[in-house]
Amino acid sequence: MSEAKSVLVVGSIALDTVKTPVEEHADLLGGSASYAALSASFFAPVNLVGVVGDDFPDSEFDFWRSRNIDARGVQRVNGKTFRWSGEYMWDMNTRETRSVALNVFEHFEPALPDAYRETEMVLLANIAPKLQSHVLDEMKRPRFVIADTMDLWIETTRDDLDALLPRVDLLILNDSEAREMTKETSLVKAGRRIRSYGPKFVAIKKGEHGALLFSENEFFSAGAYPLEDIHDPTGAGDTFAGGVAGYLAQHADGEVAFDQLRRAVIHGSVLASFCVEAFSLERLRTLSAAEIGERYQLFKMMTQFDFST
Amino acid sequence: MSEAKSVLVVGSIALDTVKTPVEEHADLLGGSASYAALSASFFAPVNLVGVVGDDFPDSEFDFWRSRNIDARGVQRVNGKTFRWSGEYMWDMNTRETRSVALNVFEHFEPALPDAYRETEMVLLANIAPKLQSHVLDEMKRPRFVIADTMDLWIETTRDDLDALLPRVDLLILNDSEAREMTKETSLVKAGRRIRSYGPKFVAIKKGEHGALLFSENEFFSAGAYPLEDIHDPTGAGDTFAGGVAGYLAQHADGEVAFDQLRRAVIHGSVLASFCVEAFSLERLRTLSAAEIGERYQLFKMMTQFDFST
Repeated sequence: MSEAKSVLVVGSIALDTVKTPVEEHADLLGGSASYAALSASFFAPVNLVGVVGDDFPDSEFDFWRSRNIDARGVQRVNGKTFRWSGEYMWDMNTRETRSVALNVFEHFEPALPDAYRETEMVLLANIAPKLQSHVLDEMKRPRFVIADTMDLWIETTRDDLDALLPRVDLLILNDSEAREMTKETSLVKAGRRIRSYGPKFVAIKKGEHGALLFSENEFFSAGAYPLEDIHDPTGAGDTFAGGVAGYLAQHADGEVAFDQLRRAVIHGSVLASFCVEAFSLERLRTLSAAEIGERYQLFKMMTQFDFST
Repeated sequence: MSEAKSVLVVGSIALDTVKTPVEEHADLLGGSASYAALSASFFAPVNLVGVVGDDFPDSEFDFWRSRNIDARGVQRVNGKTFRWSGEYMWDMNTRETRSVALNVFEHFEPALPDAYRETEMVLLANIAPKLQSHVLDEMKRPRFVIADTMDLWIETTRDDLDALLPRVDLLILNDSEAREMTKETSLVKAGRRIRSYGPKFVAIKKGEHGALLFSENEFFSAGAYPLEDIHDPTGAGDTFAGGVAGYLAQHADGEVAFDQLRRAVIHGSVLASFCVEAFSLERLRTLSAAEIGERYQLFKMMTQFDFST
């Protein structure tokens, strides 16, 4: 059974406690896959892969069902759900992890329902590169593979990451991670260098400054959507990745063209700009397709400067 | 005599010594007005106002003449030209001033030749706000006034700066200066706040991340031109301001529209991207209009994502 136009999303599912200079909330739905799946689901059906413990609320499974997110790939096992707790400093940019309890995530081995194996668009949200590779081993010839990574894996499991990269079409990482990975200060040089490690395309996220996109011969610099009130930056990067994957699943037929990737990056940025407006996934839960369309147009108005051709 | 389509540029003219991790050069032409005037001159005739000492090379006057830069407003007085020496750290972003000798600049009082007084476009390049105000006092109803400023004036002569701002149409400053001026961490909030101090428009430069532009009801986020090899960042901000002013003088008839400002900001960014490719003004000296046009098109290709309307 072909699952064309769907996105497979694998990553962490967590219960987060988040503190900002203004508020603190506990037991929020979090984890890279939670954000990425909900974000992607605005554009395409999602096949979700992850693991939760027996403390995980049933209501989330109901919610996923209501959103065209297939959660047959989410294992529920005995024990506690992965828990993360973090605190944002006054500028909402710097973050300190206060505690991490892997719990059931420690021995997570992604198991794919048969119906998932032919999904053509794959988003390996941020988890250990070894698990990301394992998921690819289980897939039948995916058409396009996106992987998100982070400093932790660059520092501690670089060999696993290096083994994954040639299997990836689009690698997503942030500016400091790109610099760390390549020892280049210029992000343009860093983006090019990372492509030489294997990925066909590289997207470097620059937080409030937008994103850069690299292919062999093309380059795209996406402006930033102006955010005035950031309530919780958690998950913005995962939401960006989910929006990119969902948009590509919805729009790319055959080969993924650079022009589609440009618009995918903008849609990822739009989704991320909503994500940070409230804690956890609260803003994404109430978001509508019309609001996404409006903000995309606004984004265009705010960043384009010359409509002559 | 009307001087429509010309730009009056006032600021510092200096001889710089610049050290980067790779090279060091002494006695280079520098100063905010030198960069801004040459940058503006690619788009419009320039009326330059400044002061130099008797050590200043005659050849620069010849060069200005060859470039449609009227230097009758540059006073040559007894003593030494303003000298600045700075060093860039390995990332080419952080800079330390090694020495400053104001010399003839210390008692500089801008004196405008009569022929300059009706120039409609005014660029108050980076100098003390009191001098910037003094120049405006000498002008007859300028149509559009642009002022560049810096942290030094925000910290030491805030009252003078506050007195200038209501007389300015477009204020240009960088991101850290905008935050310092307003105590806002969000650049969007900072930009709006600065507008409330008087300027009709505000441009916040973000270095390698592009620029933001604010009007009462509109907002523009300009992406960054990707720079791989920065040889000397000195004067990039002054060059940006000069490009903005020159482009507006060339294109704005009557009221300056926000759409023109957008393209002016991109042209400023294009000029700045050339400036940093060599020490001092060396790259701007050999730059051609064709190269500017090509890079503008490249900039457009690299930052636009949707040509549907």
